Amino acid sequence: SNQFFLLAGPCAIEGEEMAMRIAEKAVSATDKLKIPYVFKGSYRKANRSRIDSFTGIGDKKALQILRKVSETFDIPTITDIHSAEEANMAAEYVDILQIPAFLCRQTDILVAAAKTGKVVNIKKGQFLAPESMIFAINKVRDSGNDAVMVTDRGTMFGYQDLIVDYRGIPVMQKMGVPVVLDITHSLQQPNQSSGVTGGKPELIETIARAGIAAGCDGIFLETHFDPSNAKSDGANMLHLNYLETLLKKLTILRDAVLNLNSETGYKI
Amino acid sequence: SNQFFLLAGPCAIEGEEMAMRIAEKAVSATDKLKIPYVFKGSYRKANRSRIDSFTGIGDKKALQILRKVSETFDIPTITDIHSAEEANMAAEYVDILQIPAFLCRQTDILVAAAKTGKVVNIKKGQFLAPESMIFAINKVRDSGNDAVMVTDRGTMFGYQDLIVDYRGIPVMQKMGVPVVLDITHSLQQPNQSSGVTGGKPELIETIARAGIAAGCDGIFLETHFDPSNAKSDGANMLHLNYLETLLKKLTILRDAVLNLNSETGYKI
Amino acid sequence: SNQFFLLAGPCAIEGEEMAMRIAEKAVSATDKLKIPYVFKGSYRKANRSRIDSFTGIGDKKALQILRKVSETFDIPTITDIHSAEEANMAAEYVDILQIPAFLCRQTDILVAAAKTGKVVNIKKGQFLAPESMIFAINKVRDSGNDAVMVTDRGTMFGYQDLIVDYRGIPVMQKMGVPVVLDITHSLQQPNQSSGVTGGKPELIETIARAGIAAGCDGIFLETHFDPSNAKSDGANMLHLNYLETLLKKLTILRDAVLNLNSETGYKI
Amino acid sequence: SNQFFLLAGPCAIEGEEMAMRIAEKAVSATDKLKIPYVFKGSYRKANRSRIDSFTGIGDKKALQILRKVSETFDIPTITDIHSAEEANMAAEYVDILQIPAFLCRQTDILVAAAKTGKVVNIKKGQFLAPESMIFAINKVRDSGNDAVMVTDRGTMFGYQDLIVDYRGIPVMQKMGVPVVLDITHSLQQPNQSSGVTGGKPELIETIARAGIAAGCDGIFLETHFDPSNAKSDGANMLHLNYLETLLKKLTILRDAVLNLNSETGYKI
Repeated sequence: SNQFFLLAGPCAIEGEEMAMRIAEKAVSATDKLKIPYVFKGSYRKANRSRIDSFTGIGDKKALQILRKVSETFDIPTITDIHSAEEANMAAEYVDILQIPAFLCRQTDILVAAAKTGKVVNIKKGQFLAPESMIFAINKVRDSGNDAVMVTDRGTMFGYQDLIVDYRGIPVMQKMGVPVVLDITHSLQQPNQSSGVTGGKPELIETIARAGIAAGCDGIFLETHFDPSNAKSDGANMLHLNYLETLLKKLTILRDAVLNLNSETGYKI
Repeated sequence: SNQFFLLAGPCAIEGEEMAMRIAEKAVSATDKLKIPYVFKGSYRKANRSRIDSFTGIGDKKALQILRKVSETFDIPTITDIHSAEEANMAAEYVDILQIPAFLCRQTDILVAAAKTGKVVNIKKGQFLAPESMIFAINKVRDSGNDAVMVTDRGTMFGYQDLIVDYRGIPVMQKMGVPVVLDITHSLQQPNQSSGVTGGKPELIETIARAGIAAGCDGIFLETHFDPSNAKSDGANMLHLNYLETLLKKLTILRDAVLNLNSETGYKI
Repeated sequence: SNQFFLLAGPCAIEGEEMAMRIAEKAVSATDKLKIPYVFKGSYRKANRSRIDSFTGIGDKKALQILRKVSETFDIPTITDIHSAEEANMAAEYVDILQIPAFLCRQTDILVAAAKTGKVVNIKKGQFLAPESMIFAINKVRDSGNDAVMVTDRGTMFGYQDLIVDYRGIPVMQKMGVPVVLDITHSLQQPNQSSGVTGGKPELIETIARAGIAAGCDGIFLETHFDPSNAKSDGANMLHLNYLETLLKKLTILRDAVLNLNSETGYKI
Repeated sequence: SNQFFLLAGPCAIEGEEMAMRIAEKAVSATDKLKIPYVFKGSYRKANRSRIDSFTGIGDKKALQILRKVSETFDIPTITDIHSAEEANMAAEYVDILQIPAFLCRQTDILVAAAKTGKVVNIKKGQFLAPESMIFAINKVRDSGNDAVMVTDRGTMFGYQDLIVDYRGIPVMQKMGVPVVLDITHSLQQPNQSSGVTGGKPELIETIARAGIAAGCDGIFLETHFDPSNAKSDGANMLHLNYLETLLKKLTILRDAVLNLNSETGYKI
């Protein structure tokens, strides 16, 4: 299929019920639109601003919920790991291992993830140029794993803002990997004085549409049926009720983008 | 029409022949695609890095060429002014007065442009937040002229790079003005040690597609049949030969964007 | 003398009394500390965010006050100009013509200022690399005027913050010009939603001390006996009561810096 | 003592001989100037750009060299850890555990370091506002360890440049911790296309002088007797031959800074 794919789910696995409820709605929307779908959920939050922030319900418990989502809906899952030691544990439960943006240069974690044989999704550090992602990609490839993809989640712009550099999409695609755009974290407003990262969710559609038009291969987003009560990243999540409409719009745009390739002339 | 409009032409008016040649090709392409077209050309370059850079062929001579282009092809024209004194002179020859990005906070120039009664196109300073453009817009409106539009030409990102913040498109549209994306200057690489601004023209299509998808009302670009010999900004111009193909692609995307609005659900 | 010099005064000339009062206190402090002193005041504010901001008491009236300050205290004065046309007028009244940061690439203004024969102080654009200032300096020199100096007033860091790049001090000194650090505008917080630029005046001493240590030749600051009621830039001015103490501290540091040069080994 | 303290050594422990040679020279210089000195060396490099970069001579071997340096010269040592698991191992050999800048938000590592009871030096992430360091500091304190300090090593400025924000020094000191300025990593030029981080070592003295003047409590630097052949970070190290001269200059400035505090008036 030439459709874009979707990585989506809650920020953190807060419990089985909420995970199943989010997955069900996302599966329903993506089935209609023929969007390949991967359920996303973190089993632990390792880098919250404050030590009193929610960090998880227990690793094993959360990982088992991820497995149950996978089996119930027959869909792949993705979760993020935070040290080399976690790679094997997480690989038993999910299909894709994600390297957090702050950790995208940590060789040990990249190599450990690569060696599980799972697909590795590397988030581009907020401090990294798109051109520099080749070094992170090659750490996975040189460990014998070619199943690697990258996700852009915005770049630091001053202390309290992130900006998406769409030039990076074709730049990273030339490295031979699928390029995903994270349309919710890209709208974060970091370094707020409260220690709670802010957001601009009203701009999710703008960020996403520009990404599809720029040719990205996949979309990453965090969604919840009650963002204001989500235990992490509520400030920039997409409300689950808007998911299907957003995906329908992106599908219309994606169809147009695919038509561009039948045009003559130079291409991106 | 719901089509986007185009502001395009050479950076500087280097002579009549080149201006007519560029206009002819742009008119031909935009006629086919039903794109409202405004011919753009500077009659003087006032802020080149180096004093020995080309600055123009003479103000009156260049302005007369702009008028001839307008009359020959029956199209409106746009040019930029660099001081309050220039507003009336330029207004005799063109339909839209453009305020350069570095000058977008200079009250005298904005007011003088406004008072000519011509449409005023304010370029967003590379140092200005989209939210701050309301103050520049209001300087025109408060001078009795509501015919104002804004153009984003990228924002400083470190010393030697510009980045486009697509969040600014809906933000500035809410100010009640058409928002244009300048897809060639946005790819400049300023502050090069040579004193000649660099560029990344291979990314023009990416930047433009994202802009159309984000909902911009118009596209601004500089084009030349021989960019490497253009007397200014050659490093980031679009080759004239690619213009029609690019516009056709953007039209396909624009059609898709218009379809989005018939979808239900929230909008940008 | 090897002492640093000082450019200081109110942002705008609001009237004769306030100008004289500020000058008197600054003269008193700088006399004690043998700091060469230039009185600074703008006769017009040309680039306020909002059209309803204070812009001045009248050009001629303000310029005459600058002359009176100069004659009363036997000190030189500096003011900023905003178009080529203003250069000659201002040159009749003051000793140094200042080119505002947003205008530092406008060739016409630089050339007009140069041709008056007055000293020209070019403020480094918030968007300009220190290395690029050579092109602005050369526009003055190539117009037959070698009396040129530059002032750093901070560099854009995201939309709402400025940062001082101290690496620029030695970089610009190598261009053969005195380098001044503007310690009050550098603490501005631009692009505030109110349209009124914010500030962080509690950090003035930190910014200034680092500048003296990095070897800058002069200090620029705005000061007022009642910053909260100043008609412009009140948010980042130094209270006049603190001026002498600050200058005394900087003099102690400057003495230490001068001692460094008698050390052996490599120098900046 | 009111003297500043120094954390210095090679980037990586490449072998015993080089470590001893660097320590000997640094001890000699700091003894003369009464500068409290901590020898710095990494036993492993965990986040090199490229997988083929040098990563170390073996953890235990390098840690034993750190211990030998400590015993031979009777000085404390510091090294950086890259996962929670490494904290206990490293704590057996050194006096201060350092958290790398990219990892400064990883709660597990901060807590593990804190629980060893050793002093913890947290490097401020290149993506972190000084104000946000309180959350990292509190993760250590809330783990029962008040012996925490922070080190600024520059902040991202575009993709390929770092800038030092001296405003952060007093901001972080108000958190009740010693604040160190890393004067060599702050001059890095990251994201170079070669995958080898560049530098600007000719500006080390400027960066350091400004830091001492802004009131920092300590200086961090990497030094080598042959920077161009150092196995990592050679592009921005200080040549060992310049160390004593640099420290002497900084001592002169520090003495002046201490005198400022006996002045009346407001303080930073």
